Amino acid sequence: MTIDHAARRARLAAALPAHEVPALLVTSPVNVRYLTGLVSSNAAVLVRADGSALLATDNRYIDKTRALDVPAVEAPDVAGRLAAPGVGIEAAAMTVATFRRLEADLEENGGGRLVPLGPLVEELRAVKDEAELELIRTACALTDQAFADVLPLIAPGLTERALARLLDNRMTELGADKPAFDTIVAAGENGAIPHHAPTDRELRAGDLVTMDFGARYHGYHADMTRTVCLGAPAAWQRDLYDLVRRAQRAGRHALTPGARAKDVDAAARGLIEAAGHGEHFRHGLGHGVGLEIHEDPFLGPSRTGRLEDRVPITVEPGIYLPERGGVRIEDTLVTREGGPELFTKTTKELLVL
Amino acid sequence: MTIDHAARRARLAAALPAHEVPALLVTSPVNVRYLTGLVSSNAAVLVRADGSALLATDNRYIDKTRALDVPAVEAPDVAGRLAAPGVGIEAAAMTVATFRRLEADLEENGGGRLVPLGPLVEELRAVKDEAELELIRTACALTDQAFADVLPLIAPGLTERALARLLDNRMTELGADKPAFDTIVAAGENGAIPHHAPTDRELRAGDLVTMDFGARYHGYHADMTRTVCLGAPAAWQRDLYDLVRRAQRAGRHALTPGARAKDVDAAARGLIEAAGHGEHFRHGLGHGVGLEIHEDPFLGPSRTGRLEDRVPITVEPGIYLPERGGVRIEDTLVTREGGPELFTKTTKELLVL
Repeated sequence: MTIDHAARRARLAAALPAHEVPALLVTSPVNVRYLTGLVSSNAAVLVRADGSALLATDNRYIDKTRALDVPAVEAPDVAGRLAAPGVGIEAAAMTVATFRRLEADLEENGGGRLVPLGPLVEELRAVKDEAELELIRTACALTDQAFADVLPLIAPGLTERALARLLDNRMTELGADKPAFDTIVAAGENGAIPHHAPTDRELRAGDLVTMDFGARYHGYHADMTRTVCLGAPAAWQRDLYDLVRRAQRAGRHALTPGARAKDVDAAARGLIEAAGHGEHFRHGLGHGVGLEIHEDPFLGPSRTGRLEDRVPITVEPGIYLPERGGVRIEDTLVTREGGPELFTKTTKELLVL
Repeated sequence: MTIDHAARRARLAAALPAHEVPALLVTSPVNVRYLTGLVSSNAAVLVRADGSALLATDNRYIDKTRALDVPAVEAPDVAGRLAAPGVGIEAAAMTVATFRRLEADLEENGGGRLVPLGPLVEELRAVKDEAELELIRTACALTDQAFADVLPLIAPGLTERALARLLDNRMTELGADKPAFDTIVAAGENGAIPHHAPTDRELRAGDLVTMDFGARYHGYHADMTRTVCLGAPAAWQRDLYDLVRRAQRAGRHALTPGARAKDVDAAARGLIEAAGHGEHFRHGLGHGVGLEIHEDPFLGPSRTGRLEDRVPITVEPGIYLPERGGVRIEDTLVTREGGPELFTKTTKELLVL
């Protein structure tokens, strides 16, 4: 499956007249990649309402543009090379410093303003084509396999940092570009911290151990969390796990094209609140994944909007008990008519090691 | 050695009157870390001209603020919580979208503007204290050790990707947070691409192989490049290597407090140009390193400014021959009165493997 960048640019071009701009100056690196295929830390592309486009990048990347289906010019100042009066800019990607510099340059050359616009390309990116879904599916398969390979090595005495390294190394050995984000390993009381960074704390018998990690593959991300127990779980640990597991299942089952983002969140959160743990689940239920690890759409109590078809997204409820520990269970799935397709397939039974 | 965050905030506060603002709203995550010690992807700190400060972060990170020496408030919208009329903002860190939203909020609440300012904190960060230098020294020592440990494994048949993984894994095993950036391994003709991403190309006898990598340690970065030869080098390979090595030495020797950035660049570039390879060295000579892998100051033909004392910086000339290959040699050093201190100590003799 190949990616049709021209079709993506055409979809963007079709959205421009509604914003009354003749073109959009795209400066977000991930959006430039999405629209042209160029992977560069310094590039911009101007997409015009007639569907034509012009790419700019610096001398480090210009050779890579030869294989692309869009003309390119070499310029150190990529945004400055493409800016023109009346053109739209990505307000969520451009800094105030760049915006002011570009407007000052326009002023010097006879005037004209830039038009700050919202996340037009991000909105296009939320719905994936099948080629993208295949890459995310593969990223998730690598993630599952790394977990399966590392599982036999999880034992008391291993540190959080060492376990994180084992997962990271295995993912890259299996063919990942690299880890999709900084891997979280949180043992025992550290499990109460949703975004815990791995430390030299050793795993101990009686710990719940939460691992939140994923592979990146050809630029696309996987995201999975599993919580395991070292030794037989105490009653509170099993109860907590069962509750999170039921909430996660409810969230997954609510994932359907047309569902409201807040309703999907509520499907999982309601179970946790009913069990008296509402205050121990203080983050959103999930987020889109794609060329970024966190991207539109987001699932949460105050999120607006509805899900569409072919939207890869995570479902990741957690309960965090201060000083004691926590449980989080997370899958990456994609919305489909007829029910979501599960990408991360590792069991959600409580694994007792 | 401990880091004195209050002293850093005091230095920033002392710079504010010249910009006629009562406070600076710091939203760059790395600048927030520098000024408070908080590592968070969603935090802001308001530093007032009297030296006092207020931190804001969301519920994921608020617990981590208890151990800091600055008061903190919990807010999902961290910048909005701290914005006030007349306050300075970091124009190079804040997006146009955030800036417009904050100004609209101020307007609704009685008016007042924000004042876009330049990289005030970045300028403070360029000169390191001894605690920071110790962390960079350690990051560089890990980088040297990883290279020494992986060197015996470099042989024909190994792919660029596999070699990059070996370096990455060894750095993290040795205690690095993670690689400082995406490791570059470029073999043979791929060495002609300065920012080559590793592929499945196998190393072959006769290849020059360039490795550009580094460790991150406690948030601080190392950066080193070495080019080795598989088998006896051809005459052109040895000549190219010797030229780059002489240019790199000239650049290092020019690194002295008070030197102009463009003069340091010229010390190395002049030798390469005199040998007729000026067009084959099209990037700057080096960049500062610290909490970011690329930060002020930068060395290049059009860079202004002078070096100060205690500035960690890279010196990394390269020559890239299209279709044939390239050589780059890079060290991380720190400027010192009396001559730079070399942090990356791996030999710069041509290693023939």
